[in-house]
Amino acid sequence: MPSDRKVATDRANAILEIDLRAVAANWRRLKRELAPGVRMAAVIKADAYGLGAAQVGPALLRAGCELFFVASLDEGIALRKVLPKARIAILDGALAGSEAEFARHRLMPVLNDLGQVTRWSKAYPRKPAIFHLDTGMERLGLSRAEVDRLTANPALLAHLDVAAIMSHLACADEPEHPKNPEQLARFRTALARLPKAPASLASSSAIFLGRAYHFQIVRPGAALFGINPLPGKPNPMRATVALRAKILQVRDVDAGETVGYGATHRMERPSRIATIAVGYADGWLRSASDRGSAAIAGRRVPLVGRISMDLLTLDVTGIEADRAKPGAYVDLLDDSYGIDDAAEAARTIGYEMLTLLGRRYARVYRGAR
Amino acid sequence: MPSDRKVATDRANAILEIDLRAVAANWRRLKRELAPGVRMAAVIKADAYGLGAAQVGPALLRAGCELFFVASLDEGIALRKVLPKARIAILDGALAGSEAEFARHRLMPVLNDLGQVTRWSKAYPRKPAIFHLDTGMERLGLSRAEVDRLTANPALLAHLDVAAIMSHLACADEPEHPKNPEQLARFRTALARLPKAPASLASSSAIFLGRAYHFQIVRPGAALFGINPLPGKPNPMRATVALRAKILQVRDVDAGETVGYGATHRMERPSRIATIAVGYADGWLRSASDRGSAAIAGRRVPLVGRISMDLLTLDVTGIEADRAKPGAYVDLLDDSYGIDDAAEAARTIGYEMLTLLGRRYARVYRGAR
Repeated sequence: MPSDRKVATDRANAILEIDLRAVAANWRRLKRELAPGVRMAAVIKADAYGLGAAQVGPALLRAGCELFFVASLDEGIALRKVLPKARIAILDGALAGSEAEFARHRLMPVLNDLGQVTRWSKAYPRKPAIFHLDTGMERLGLSRAEVDRLTANPALLAHLDVAAIMSHLACADEPEHPKNPEQLARFRTALARLPKAPASLASSSAIFLGRAYHFQIVRPGAALFGINPLPGKPNPMRATVALRAKILQVRDVDAGETVGYGATHRMERPSRIATIAVGYADGWLRSASDRGSAAIAGRRVPLVGRISMDLLTLDVTGIEADRAKPGAYVDLLDDSYGIDDAAEAARTIGYEMLTLLGRRYARVYRGAR
Repeated sequence: MPSDRKVATDRANAILEIDLRAVAANWRRLKRELAPGVRMAAVIKADAYGLGAAQVGPALLRAGCELFFVASLDEGIALRKVLPKARIAILDGALAGSEAEFARHRLMPVLNDLGQVTRWSKAYPRKPAIFHLDTGMERLGLSRAEVDRLTANPALLAHLDVAAIMSHLACADEPEHPKNPEQLARFRTALARLPKAPASLASSSAIFLGRAYHFQIVRPGAALFGINPLPGKPNPMRATVALRAKILQVRDVDAGETVGYGATHRMERPSRIATIAVGYADGWLRSASDRGSAAIAGRRVPLVGRISMDLLTLDVTGIEADRAKPGAYVDLLDDSYGIDDAAEAARTIGYEMLTLLGRRYARVYRGAR
């Protein structure tokens, strides 16, 4: 009901716009890095990095995506409802006893250890699964010793429909890191010992390490959502989110007064402070206190004082009173100041900033059908 | 449907238990600090600090709470549905044009500036509102200059039903901070100039600053949820949350191998690593990478390597294999390692850690009716 949505947006203190067209454009942009015939899957775990798997999933399906990765069984069950036909793989794997749930919802487990391989081959020999080989993350995936045991047991392998064999890089965002070629070599060695299946090593950043890393399937996540896969270089991706929030109050603050909790920020001169209704409970992390900035009518204003649970304060001294006034909008994320910029101010990475964007924002999707 | 809930909990990778009895016990504990006749309200903004206002609100109502504070109009409208009769106040105030929404849902605005006071007195002179005076936060609330203008306009005051006059301390968690008596004095001065109404200055920590800070209404939030209102001293509050997560995989890691993104954590000796399905997207902040710990069957194990979006890794070397195994539970938050401990590992405060606890956990409420 558009009118209800209009009311909700009008009264919301902050609005998060999610541009599904930009997600699709990023899909096409990444495709251009690939040789013909290399397939591309999409990683939309953590509720599509916080942007809403129920909206992002169908948008990527329309863009041509046929294989989706999520983290947990619960995420897979939820995604199945909006993508009744797509292939959906579960990165967390299949814990003992959960196999029937995978089958019921037609979800493909990423088999992370030999126990999972054995149980799946017994329970569902005809249903596809993905092998995950660890090559140096030491987090999830079959170890080299487990690959040894697997290759020593051809009967086990014969009872599996292997949809793909995957691994994951630890340092793909550092192109010169020696761990990248080391993991690549380990992956090749393991692949050579296993039955032929489509291989997948590259997520977002690794796509830009070159075609040696692409194999048959790449599986970007972050880059689809506008996070720069090339830290330190210009971002080839489009921003997918914009966040604006209303000014609740503007106040004159005398020189010598302090702003916010802990009285940590003392005003050196008579100032004007605008308070907006975004705080760390909305994912504007407290580590960004006294750091970073926002924009009012295109002019940047610094964040001052500690970020509190529901509020943050901006120094709007010098901004015209008819622009910095209660009810006026401040841009927290836009095309010129994106999720990676906000993350840097919060001393973290765009991935964390994006996934923690809060649940109190009125969410508006652009390009939804 | 309990059976559905059982299935959801069985297949969940992580379970957040929220003990509403502990919330009620904390309510009673805080009450003991108060002189007879001092009333206590509850601040349950940010979805009751992340614990669920729809569950926490009714639990506090049963404990005797009659006045609830939330941050935004949207939070108030949601809370009204589960608390049809309680008084609910909105800390963000009433932006121009939103007054009718307050009236429609019987929500009480916290009037933060003179414009809000004027509009409310014109629109709803018979409906109660709360005055918020700034005494040194410089965030929300009427300035001293606005109080001057207000007292110069007795007609305006005559047209208002003032349910309370409040202010908020910047440094209540630092009992020796000179800002506390300074704000107290400013508050007293302003109160003396305004018509008599119940006064409220103290939130959680300020309750422990002594009865001079209590006035007629105190309004705790964090302490109700178990956050220590006395940093550096023993916590007088009960823990309200417990978080446990399943081990997805346990692996042997050779000496010299690195764990996780960035290859930042190198194992000095042959080790065993357990991977669990909690990551920064679940609010286990990335700033806790290589810091803090969890417990397996009562034994503490350190978190090693970087926290990733959906996973973290624990060094379980030396823990018996029948305890540290896939499907076994790890305690991330319990009575002996609480939200403040986890926050310290993440270099933040319990307030942020609590409000960011994620949406992927299966949530189980104890003591719900």
